[in-house]
Formats: sequence, structure tokens, C-alpha cells
Amino acid sequence: MNGDGPLEILIRQLAALPGLGPRSARRAALYLLDRRKTQMLPLAQAIKHAAESVRECSVCSNLDTSDPCRICSDARRDEGLICVVAQVSDLWAIERTGAFKGLYHVLGGMLSALDGLGPEQLRIPALLARVKEPAVREVILALSATVDGQSTAHYIADHLGPGGDAKITRLAHGVPVGGELDYLDDGTIITALRARNAA
Amino acid sequence: MNGDGPLEILIRQLAALPGLGPRSARRAALYLLDRRKTQMLPLAQAIKHAAESVRECSVCSNLDTSDPCRICSDARRDEGLICVVAQVSDLWAIERTGAFKGLYHVLGGMLSALDGLGPEQLRIPALLARVKEPAVREVILALSATVDGQSTAHYIADHLGPGGDAKITRLAHGVPVGGELDYLDDGTIITALRARNAA
Repeated sequence: MNGDGPLEILIRQLAALPGLGPRSARRAALYLLDRRKTQMLPLAQAIKHAAESVRECSVCSNLDTSDPCRICSDARRDEGLICVVAQVSDLWAIERTGAFKGLYHVLGGMLSALDGLGPEQLRIPALLARVKEPAVREVILALSATVDGQSTAHYIADHLGPGGDAKITRLAHGVPVGGELDYLDDGTIITALRARNAA
Repeated sequence: MNGDGPLEILIRQLAALPGLGPRSARRAALYLLDRRKTQMLPLAQAIKHAAESVRECSVCSNLDTSDPCRICSDARRDEGLICVVAQVSDLWAIERTGAFKGLYHVLGGMLSALDGLGPEQLRIPALLARVKEPAVREVILALSATVDGQSTAHYIADHLGPGGDAKITRLAHGVPVGGELDYLDDGTIITALRARNAA
């Protein structure tokens, strides 16, 4: 295992992926070499093909092969609803539920002084411009319940608030479905208590 | 996220790797798409290159770009010592220590009635033939301390034993370096007690 052979390069590249360390990269490389025709060459092809064909939607920043993306160009979806998410993975999480039929706006991250991410880095100006369109009735801020997520939601709500006609909403906080009270943190229980509904 | 776009295919292929599930495959795909030129296309190239250039050594079954492999063709290594390992990853583990200067023989697995792996599937006949060469002084069975590993070692020792001149040895069992007695299983402690040395 000295450093410059094709196998060593492959292992180093695999180990750079999130979720894979050096040990699992070695295991993945051996796994692939055992399956050259059925998985290894198809994987190389899939990576190359995705790198060349997947682009960012100019409307919502979703990733797709077409621009506008399949969601933005789907006439059956409600263009009056815009769901604001931090990352494409959040958009995928909501799409998997099948419960949302509006459009999205992917910010590309959350405001973070530590990481030097301000509104300009986050496609917040594009969101503000988009929400000015008269068709937009509601903007749903679907951001994580973390400090960065909530300060991003706050910033957007502040800047959308005054001039616009669109309603601004956030995801409800409370007890996760299937969650056991005994295992929940105090903050979630307090929020769920305050937001209690008629039974 | 319907099933046939290049992004979906990429995620599915990544999720098939050992150590990556659907969630980490999605994360890895987004990570790569953020780094197309610096990591994504080089990874595709590295996979393709390794698939096309890495082969099995006809002597020891190590994986390398040359046949015989760099270890088998290294004149500085002691051809009188053959270290028998189950997998290429075991060979790598021993090579990383830098403590072994002989040659290897990769079995390609361990005897396992459950998985239908017999001596013929495991390159054991090739090992038996190889050990007949007069240069071979010692065969080190470096197999895992599991039931399959030990029965494989037993089988090989039985079949090498009678006719050959080579000494057959196994890795020592005992307390791992840095291991705390309190956390060791009974079997390891008993073995270490029985194999105790003069202090």
C-alpha cells in the first residue's frame, strides 16, 4: 500500500466522502473490485453522468437535469405556496412525505456568523424578489429547529414582513410523532405544552 | 426524487456500497455535486482506472497493477516465509505494521459450511502446491481468532503437516496491546494465562 497506485488513489478518494473513513473506504474499494462489471464501472459512469447533467434550478436552486426543475415546471403544483428550505436534502425529505404540493426555495445553507454566511451567500435576495410576485400567498419557513435555523427564519420573516402580502408561516414545533415524552428534551416539552391544542 | 434521473441512479449506486445507507448516500451525492471538478470527476476517473488496471496476483492473489504483485516480485522479501491471510484487507493490515518481510498467500475467504465455501473455493490447493517448493521454510497462518478462522487454520495445518518440511505457525493469542483485563472476554484471558511467558 504505497501511495500512488490506482488502488491507493481510489481508496483516498472514497475516504474523502462524508460517512466513509479510511477503513470503510478500503472495504468499499475491495467490494467494488469484486464486482467490476456489475457495480464498479456503472458507479463510475453514474458519477460522471450526474456530474455532467445535474444542474441547479435557476428558480428554486433544486438539483435536477432540467432548468427549471421538474417541481418548478410542474403545472399541477401550487405556485402560491413557497416552502423555504436550507438544503436540497431538506427538499427531498419534504418531497418524500408527499404532503406538500407547492414550490420550494433552497437557500443553500443557514445564516451563520461563524461560517461567514450572510444573506447574500444564501439566495435570500432571490427569495425576497420571488415573494413579491402577486401569485405568492404563503411562504412556509421549513428550517431546522436549531439556533442557526431559527435566526435564519427570523431574518427572512423580518425582511418579508412589512411590504409583502404573503402570509409567513413556520413548521409547528412539538412532540415528534412516535416520540416518547421521557426521552424528549425540556425545550421540546415546553414548546409542545405552550402550543397545546384542544383534544 | 422519482427513480430514473441521473441523481437518483447515483444515489442508488452509492447506497449499495458497504458502510453507506440511503441517507449517507444522499449526503455523499450532494457533497460530490458541490465539488464536481475537484472531487466528483476525479472519483469517477479513479474508479474506472482501478477497475481497468488492478488485477489479482497469480502467485499470492494480492491486488495490484502488476502480476506478480509488487510484494511477490520484491527481491528483498524473504521467499522462505509465507503468511496465509483470508482477505486482501488482512494483508494490508499486516503490511501497515511493516513488521513482516516475507510473502503472502490470500485465501479469498475462510472455510464456511454455511456459506458453502470449501477448500476448492479458497485457493487452498494453490497454497498446498506452493508450500511444496523447497525454499519455503515457514507458513504463518494469520487467520482471525473466530470459529471459521480457526477451523480454516486447522484444515490447512492438517493438510500441510505430514509431507512437508515447512514449519507451520499461528499468530499468538493473548491480551491485545493496550487492552484492559477488565474488558476482555474470558476466552482471551484463559488463553493468555495458559500461554504465559517468563516475565
